[in-house]
Formats: sequence, structure tokens, C-alpha cells
Amino acid sequence: MTYKIAVLPGDGIGKEIVDQAARVLTALKLDISLEEAPVGGAAYDQLGHPLPPSTLALAKSSNAILFGAVGDWKYDSLPREHRPEQAILGLRKNMGLFANLRPAILYPQLANASSLKPEVVSGLDILIVRELTGDIYFGTPRGVRTAEDGAFKGEQEGFDTMRYAETEVRRIAKIAFEAARKRQGKLCSVDKANVLETSQFWRDIMIDVSKQYPDVALSHMYVDNAAMQLVRAPKEFDVIVTGNLFGDILSDEAAMLTGSIGMLPSASLNASNQGLYEPSHGSAPDIAGKNIANPLATILSAAMLLRYSLNETAAADKIEEAVRQVLAQGLRTADIYEEGTEKVSTSQMGDAVLKAL
Amino acid sequence: MTYKIAVLPGDGIGKEIVDQAARVLTALKLDISLEEAPVGGAAYDQLGHPLPPSTLALAKSSNAILFGAVGDWKYDSLPREHRPEQAILGLRKNMGLFANLRPAILYPQLANASSLKPEVVSGLDILIVRELTGDIYFGTPRGVRTAEDGAFKGEQEGFDTMRYAETEVRRIAKIAFEAARKRQGKLCSVDKANVLETSQFWRDIMIDVSKQYPDVALSHMYVDNAAMQLVRAPKEFDVIVTGNLFGDILSDEAAMLTGSIGMLPSASLNASNQGLYEPSHGSAPDIAGKNIANPLATILSAAMLLRYSLNETAAADKIEEAVRQVLAQGLRTADIYEEGTEKVSTSQMGDAVLKAL
Ligand SMILES: CC(C)[C@H](C(=O)O)[C@@H](O)C(=O)O
Ligand SMILES: CC(C)[C@H](C(=O)O)[C@@H](O)C(=O)O
Repeated sequence: MTYKIAVLPGDGIGKEIVDQAARVLTALKLDISLEEAPVGGAAYDQLGHPLPPSTLALAKSSNAILFGAVGDWKYDSLPREHRPEQAILGLRKNMGLFANLRPAILYPQLANASSLKPEVVSGLDILIVRELTGDIYFGTPRGVRTAEDGAFKGEQEGFDTMRYAETEVRRIAKIAFEAARKRQGKLCSVDKANVLETSQFWRDIMIDVSKQYPDVALSHMYVDNAAMQLVRAPKEFDVIVTGNLFGDILSDEAAMLTGSIGMLPSASLNASNQGLYEPSHGSAPDIAGKNIANPLATILSAAMLLRYSLNETAAADKIEEAVRQVLAQGLRTADIYEEGTEKVSTSQMGDAVLKAL
Repeated sequence: MTYKIAVLPGDGIGKEIVDQAARVLTALKLDISLEEAPVGGAAYDQLGHPLPPSTLALAKSSNAILFGAVGDWKYDSLPREHRPEQAILGLRKNMGLFANLRPAILYPQLANASSLKPEVVSGLDILIVRELTGDIYFGTPRGVRTAEDGAFKGEQEGFDTMRYAETEVRRIAKIAFEAARKRQGKLCSVDKANVLETSQFWRDIMIDVSKQYPDVALSHMYVDNAAMQLVRAPKEFDVIVTGNLFGDILSDEAAMLTGSIGMLPSASLNASNQGLYEPSHGSAPDIAGKNIANPLATILSAAMLLRYSLNETAAADKIEEAVRQVLAQGLRTADIYEEGTEKVSTSQMGDAVLKAL
């Protein structure tokens, strides 16, 4: 069977970094076919929509999607439905990619890049499991209306609906407990149950699901406290599971703790193990086309793709080992460069990973 | 005219730290009358409710409230309406305390306490202006129901409503612009306008209000990015304005950047300058009654009380100067102690501030 991978480079540095990851995938000599399609601002320019039907169809018919990044200042004034971000939201929703896995790992050689003290972050290895198709991101009703009650009745108000149904919480809980089981066995569920009904509902289900995982230690933390503890003592965490909105905030905070967000991959999976794989960083339009972006987060996303959607564990291991090797060799793109290391371009970093494979 | 201050110590270390702040207020020889009442878990134990009507009445009839902290593990299993947090939510809502001012300041002598590198945080001085009576905290409808639409129709779901009316956004915008004008003239409004209708509505109003403040530079940032930038380069911020939920998360994150949350006061104001003043930290039940908690955040909250609710600027300045002096003298409570400084108890720290006054 040939694996079919949809390659969606997107905007900004998307093309450069995805190119390197595609080279790596190709070099592995697996039976993989890569097919490219436009997405984000690039797709809007070409086809009038950030997620054209042809791109969505390709994505749906593939085993996995290798995604670059979307977004550019120049699309900021478009109406919301035409903005690049809609592509990623549309892919998540249409493909049911409910489970977002975002590791925050600090590679020993890059400890200096962090704005935190080395002793606070060295050896950091946490996994954030973020629910990705529910919550206030997609809840209806939403919009702008005349307030019908409350102290500001009669005025205009903006509004959104946060909601989580039982199945949605159960299935992400299951993913998180399974992940914790394969790691240190510690799962922290983050919510705001002291204020939100949705959170209390979420927490009750987490507790219920935990009965099937007596080997995993479940704890609960309010989101404000989690934002603090990530700064104070991030290594106390193993796996964090949380909703879409809190996960958006905390996974970015956790990524930035490492100071090397250019190294961090992510996976977004659905119930049939189809997945979208993308770097945790954005499209960085300011450095696009300069061949200086760090391709490693995307290359590591390709490794996650092999691991989670294709079940090609050995190939995934090989890529991750190759990345560790190029770091050990002292090769660095500009974002992680420091004195005493060798500064390389995007494509040179790709070359080095290929050589290490 | 005698100023009337309601003193609500609350739970855990609340009593010890409020006692020291009350001593400081008394020592200033202003015409102030202090009246104490129970709140939080203590009030539930005594009177069956975390915010008894008598406490609320006292608070409402006062110029300002000096608040300790509420909460203790032992109340965790109570139904939500009886939990200690309801006291603080009830005071905010009933008194219309919509403007929460939370400075995150790193005192030069305490730079080592931070988990961030000294160069990243030394001299940090940001102000978070958090809207405090709207948003998903109080929005209705909310609860648990059978889903009436969507992919999980017929299932149980938890739900909440995020909402902001025009007046609510305008008045907090005004507070934030005025504050920025008195500082570095930089205001960053944090939202999630790429996803939420409430946020787009919020952003549009911020832009409209900014026309009256041509001297203030307004910028916008998504909340996920703000959570990152606070870790990466917090000193880039001057004033941040944001909604209740995002403000809850970001103000705690910002406070923790300093590593000395025991030093950070907060003010919650309504339209008539009545205010509730409390430390940014919690009730710390694990160290309650030991006379080791840091009273300085509460003492600095008393300074904010004088400044914002009583307009006693000189007295406020005096307290803040006294706190700087005790730090310069090398006195430290356990939470901020380091080698080469002198460890003191809660009451000894209070003594030292009184002496410095
Ligand atoms: C682009 C945006 C809609 C998206 C999100 O909020 O989910 C991004 O921040 C992310 O985390 O993937
Ligand atoms: C206790 C809790 C309800 C409260 C909040 O979420 O507002 C607290 O975290 C705060 O920030 O004052």
C-alpha cells in the first residue's frame, strides 16, 4: 500500500520548511506519495479561499497532512472567513482532528536559548494534549446582537458559547491517559472549574475516565495556576490535558519556555489516525524566502506523522535521532544560533539531517 | 470625614497579613475607621455563607475594602455556591468592581527569586488591567443540559456564555488608556479576535476608544501570543488590557515572572472609586498561623487603597517608600529569603515597615 501524504506549505516560511521535511520523508525509501496543494493566504490569492474544496478533498483522501504555516499581515483586513487561520480551523473541524499533541522539549544543547534559568528548564519534557474541535472555538450561538437581558440590555454585545459534550471530553481524556501511561504516568487536567460550568462538567468526566487508568495519577489544576506553575516549575508536569481555548494559551506558553520554538512539532489526530502535522511556530513572514528559517520543527513533525498516522515507528525514530545528531554536530539555524556553534541555512540544515539519516 | 474601611481577612494566612496592613493604615494617623467582618470559608463556618449579607452590607457602605485571601482545601467538596471563591466573585459583581489593576513589578533586590534570567526580568514593571465583572465569568445562559444541536445532539453537555456589551468594553478601555497615559504610553489589548466574536467586538471598541487617546500607542495581541511574549520578553509590555478570563490567566503568569508574588498587590475598582484591595497571592493554608507569610503584598495593597479610593497620595507614597526601605535593609520573609539577607517573620516585617514609615 502506498501512503498518501498531502503537503500543504501555506504562507511565509511554510514552503521552505516543508520542502526540507518532504526531502526527509522521501529519503526514507518508504512507499510514500506526496501531493502538494495551496492553503491559507496563498490559496486565497490563487483560488479565492484559504481552504479551497480541492485542498480539503486532497487532505481528506490522504493518510496524513504535512502542513507548513499560514498567515501574513497582508490578509489582516480580510473578512474573518477569508483569513488564512480559517484554513487550519476548517481542516481541524472537517476532518475531526480533535486530539492535538504538543510536546515541549528542551534539547540539552539549546538550554541557553530559554529565557528561564537553565536549572528550571534543562531536561524539560512535557506533553500538552489539547482538545481541538470543540469548546468556544466552534460553539454556537455566537456573534454580535442586541443584549436581551442583564445590566446592558438593549446595547450591542459580542458573544460566544463555550461547550463540551460528554463524548468530546471522554475521547480526549482517553488519548491523554494513554499518553501518560506511556510516559511518567502523571496527568494534570487543567480547567477553571471554580468558575465555569463547562469546566466542572469536564472535570467530572476526567475523574470518571480515570477509574479505567488506576496506573495514572490524575490531578486537577485551575488554568490561572497552571499558567503560573509552567513559569515556576515546568518540570513538575508530565502530561497536561485541557480544552481548546486553555490549550491554545498554555501550549504556546510551554513552547516558549524552551526558547527554541523552532524545534517543536505538533500532531492533530482524528479517530481514524489521520493526522495533520505542523511546526508549533508560525509563518514568520518577515523572514520568508531568505532560506534562514529553522526546518527542524517541521522535520520533527514528519517524524510524528510517521509515528502516529503511518505507524512507521522505526522511521520516526531515525528522524529524531538524525535531528539529535545535527544538534550534537553544532549546526544551528539563526533562531537557535549561539557563539561556538555553526550557523547554517534552512537547506543546509535539511542537507545535514539527510546526511545523518 | 472619617474614611470607613471594611477589613475582610478571610481564610488561611488572610488574618496574619491583613493584621499587618491594618497596623500600617492605623499608624498613618489619617481619620480612618476599620471594621472587620468574616468572608470566605471562615464566613461559611460561622454564618453558613461565604459572603454573608452582613459582610456585603459592610463592604458596600465602606470607602474601601482591605481583603486578605479566601480558600482552603477543606471547602473543596462543598457545592459551588458555598465555596470560598464565591465571596470574591460576589463582592466584585454586587459592588460593580469592574476594573482590576494588577501591577507586576520586580524589585531590584529580589531579581534572583525569579525563575527567569535576571536580564529578562530585572526592572520589570507592567500593569495588567483586567475587566472583572463581565465575560464568561458571569455570562448567562450557563449550566449542564442536553445538547440540542451539533454533532453530539442528545448528549449531556456543559456550557457557558462569553459576552461583552459595548459599555463594559468602553469603560475598561478608558481606565486602561488613562493608566497608560500616566506610564510609558503603551497599551496592548489582548484578545482572541481571530477566533472569537466577543474578541472582535472588544477589539473594534478598543480601536474606537483609542481615537480619544492619540498620545497612547495601542497595539493588539492574541492571547496565545501574549502568553508567549510574557515569557520571552516581558519588559516589552507597559500596560496590558484584557477581558476577565484572559486577564485571570495572564495576570497570574505575569505575577509569577517576578518570582515574588508575595510582593504584588491588586486593586479592584468600581465607577465611584470604591475598591477592593488584596494581595495577588492566595490563602496558602499550608503555612497559615505560623507567622511566616509575607505581609508586603497586603501592605502594598493598603497603599493602593489610599491612592485609588481615598486619594491620599502622600500616604500611599510613604508606604511604598517604607517597603523599599525594608527591602534595602535586607529584611526578607521566608518566601523571598536568600543567603546574605535576614529572615524575618510576618509580624517582624510589619514592625519594620512601621518603623520605616
Ligand atoms: C491560528 C489560530 C486560529 C490557532 C488556534 O487558535 O488554534 C493557532 O493559534 C494554533 O494554536 O494552532
Ligand atoms: C478565585 C477565583 C474565582 C478568582 C478568579 O478567577 O477571578 C481568582 O483566580 C482571581 O484571579 O482573583
